[in-house]
Amino acid sequence: MVARVIPVDPFDLVVFGATGDLALRKIMPALCCRFADGQMPTDARVIGAARGEMTTGAYRAEVAQALDAVLTGPDTPSAQTRRDFLDRLDYITLDARGEEGWPALRDTLRPDPVRSFYFAVAPSLFGALAERLDRWSLITPQTRIVAEKPFGHDQASARALNAALAQHFTEAQIYRIDHYLGKETVQNLMAVRFANILFEPLWNARFIDHVQITVAETVGVGGRGDYYAQTGAMRDMVQNHLMQLLCLIAMEPPHRFDPDAMRDEKLKVIRALDPLAPGDIVRGQYSGGRDTPSFADETGEAGENTESYVALRAGIANWRWKGTPFYLRTGKRLSRRVSEIAVTFRDPPHSIFGEGAPWRENVLVIRLQPDEGMDLRVMIKEPGPGGMRLKDVALDMSFAEALGDDLHIPDAYERLIMDVIRGNQTLFMRSDEVEAAWAWVDPVIAGFGRLEDAPVAYAPGSDGPDQATELLRRDGRQWREIR
Amino acid sequence: MVARVIPVDPFDLVVFGATGDLALRKIMPALCCRFADGQMPTDARVIGAARGEMTTGAYRAEVAQALDAVLTGPDTPSAQTRRDFLDRLDYITLDARGEEGWPALRDTLRPDPVRSFYFAVAPSLFGALAERLDRWSLITPQTRIVAEKPFGHDQASARALNAALAQHFTEAQIYRIDHYLGKETVQNLMAVRFANILFEPLWNARFIDHVQITVAETVGVGGRGDYYAQTGAMRDMVQNHLMQLLCLIAMEPPHRFDPDAMRDEKLKVIRALDPLAPGDIVRGQYSGGRDTPSFADETGEAGENTESYVALRAGIANWRWKGTPFYLRTGKRLSRRVSEIAVTFRDPPHSIFGEGAPWRENVLVIRLQPDEGMDLRVMIKEPGPGGMRLKDVALDMSFAEALGDDLHIPDAYERLIMDVIRGNQTLFMRSDEVEAAWAWVDPVIAGFGRLEDAPVAYAPGSDGPDQATELLRRDGRQWREIR
Repeated sequence: MVARVIPVDPFDLVVFGATGDLALRKIMPALCCRFADGQMPTDARVIGAARGEMTTGAYRAEVAQALDAVLTGPDTPSAQTRRDFLDRLDYITLDARGEEGWPALRDTLRPDPVRSFYFAVAPSLFGALAERLDRWSLITPQTRIVAEKPFGHDQASARALNAALAQHFTEAQIYRIDHYLGKETVQNLMAVRFANILFEPLWNARFIDHVQITVAETVGVGGRGDYYAQTGAMRDMVQNHLMQLLCLIAMEPPHRFDPDAMRDEKLKVIRALDPLAPGDIVRGQYSGGRDTPSFADETGEAGENTESYVALRAGIANWRWKGTPFYLRTGKRLSRRVSEIAVTFRDPPHSIFGEGAPWRENVLVIRLQPDEGMDLRVMIKEPGPGGMRLKDVALDMSFAEALGDDLHIPDAYERLIMDVIRGNQTLFMRSDEVEAAWAWVDPVIAGFGRLEDAPVAYAPGSDGPDQATELLRRDGRQWREIR
Repeated sequence: MVARVIPVDPFDLVVFGATGDLALRKIMPALCCRFADGQMPTDARVIGAARGEMTTGAYRAEVAQALDAVLTGPDTPSAQTRRDFLDRLDYITLDARGEEGWPALRDTLRPDPVRSFYFAVAPSLFGALAERLDRWSLITPQTRIVAEKPFGHDQASARALNAALAQHFTEAQIYRIDHYLGKETVQNLMAVRFANILFEPLWNARFIDHVQITVAETVGVGGRGDYYAQTGAMRDMVQNHLMQLLCLIAMEPPHRFDPDAMRDEKLKVIRALDPLAPGDIVRGQYSGGRDTPSFADETGEAGENTESYVALRAGIANWRWKGTPFYLRTGKRLSRRVSEIAVTFRDPPHSIFGEGAPWRENVLVIRLQPDEGMDLRVMIKEPGPGGMRLKDVALDMSFAEALGDDLHIPDAYERLIMDVIRGNQTLFMRSDEVEAAWAWVDPVIAGFGRLEDAPVAYAPGSDGPDQATELLRRDGRQWREIR
């Protein structure tokens, strides 16, 4: 099957922070893939902007190198296609806080097409960029900005950031990106939940025992020790990615699959979250390994009370979910790089096949990485001539494989950048959502000074601290293996 | 995967009607396959009994021929295995209504093992056989009898037959066989319904729009014209096979997967069936084709008011099913040989994806032949970089293929005969079930004299008469294609 591709309208896309990691490793490869698929029209233009002095030629060479490093699979764009894409690229040396480069940028942009500014820079520059875009009259009705995380450090700073942007842009122009929402499988979760009668009637505390959301990384904090010492997993991962995934699982059906309807429902979930009690949360720091430094080594004294791992038990106080815990965990230096959501259904109230029958509960597993996909585990009769023997099997609810090997499942950034151009905010966060998420997280973090929830050590390459295992065992449950 | 096979206990199995079609084409091949799989122990014995004078050697030769005709697939028993199986066979010339052969049979049977008598003869002989088995003291506590359809011609005759058998056997010794219940997929339906929490909460009129049960044959009545003229599709197929399938779909969860619990629930369904009104039923007779005779040609004047096709709309008057019609149809000389049950779910109450979204309702399709299997049709997001486009796909709920090509899915007779030996009546009909089914069917057939429901003509190789199409169109629905 060849995926149908509908080209977007012509656009000018300006990437601030064009020489940074995000621009080179994510944004440019994503654009190149969309270009290769024919979705990015040939008269679209991409303008890199950063502080460093550089010619357009030199910038293209740098991007070419980044493309070669990132796009290594068998179905990646050809050398010719990459060259054609690079031809669409320009570079402007620009000072976000000064005057340099702004006139050149103004002269480069075309008046009519969609105009997008991607803020691939530290949030401390968001205000200055917004202010200058306005001052240089670069904001047309067709203008959008894209803002990356971290979107603030707490509710107060997020609110200040939102206010700074709101001075120059309407909410409909601001695209707060969370790339987890751009995953193919997250999209499919929406289809499975809302385009079938089969799941929604069961999607509540009466039939769902609990939900596990796991985002496990194998890397440590690496060179970002100073930054991470001030951040921790709760701010870096839970407040955005894990809470967004929780919202997609827990939300009521929106009346339409459109931005405000979706975000209204996600917001309601965040506001319905029970406050976390100290016993609901486990924090951890990885120890040193044979060849790897400990978290303490990497973050120093400033990271003493910072967590590289967090596991928590969240409750949602509404009619649908009261009684179904949502267990969230995320951490660095764990055994595997895995992101998944597992929705575990309750057991049938009674087994007609007797107590001896082998048993597995129904589970819907939504894998975000690696190998995006969705499986529904069900019990069937083991085929064959014997008596009634039960067996649990996985139904593939994503079908990417069945639908053709040549199908390129786009990276989340590919989808999300095209959504920006199309003007579709469905998968982006609204200001009130971000602020509400901080409002839930802030008091938890404020309590972290207490001795009883000080970070505990866990071995690098493990599945996290024993205390996290205990968190679920107390409830008679256990974490899924990270694999 | 090699299927696990647990051998049954040693047994003596006597097949009355040993030279008939059923014995040669179904029972013996089924036994040979179970023997080849190691489920029939080597000291088990099979004794053919029939009226014809024949040596055991000649009988073995006849069975050998039948095995060669029936067991033609790639995974059928080897020549050596067939010979070993044939060595287990004996033959006794026996007069069901006389004395001949009974002493020989008595002397042949061993006292201790399970002793089964398969009545592969016309029901008119059931009483005589039962009486003689008793008179010759052949009935041990370990004795079972197997009775084939037709089990009576109406409620009165079924009751008489039950009474005749009950003089000599307890209900627990009587195995009324309906080979549809022995299908692998029918078993799997029980696992899917009752070993998962996912389906039972949706398994009612609130979520299921309607159910279609189709048993389509391509053959005509052939040489059985005289018999069939007195029978018709309602008696021949609906009263037993289709009603049994309806019961398995519609029944409440039994408290255990055991014979009486299952049959209690099936009986409740039959008793809750609404009486059929004349407008609920369409009867048909196939016309002649280029090379095929018409039903009238084959059945003559006696078949004038007999149907070779019937379609009907049944309602179940209980809390679970009120409002969900069950459409049943069966006929001869149709386009394909197909048996299937399709459970069509209602649409979601509202589409969040807009009215333009392509749409298919969720359907659980249980295929009994050809290609046994179970599919659940669901909507997913069409994988790929586009927007939210929906696609309907089939989840394979049977997994026979995935679990290994070398897996031999047993014929229904294989399973059912082994169940007889094991003493498991779960898949056999109890006397009250059979009588209740006749009680529903009898008044309908009694009404068949009226002009307005006289059989209508349909073309051979078609999907049945137009009036059957109209029966569903009136309700805003349509039959699935027979394919």
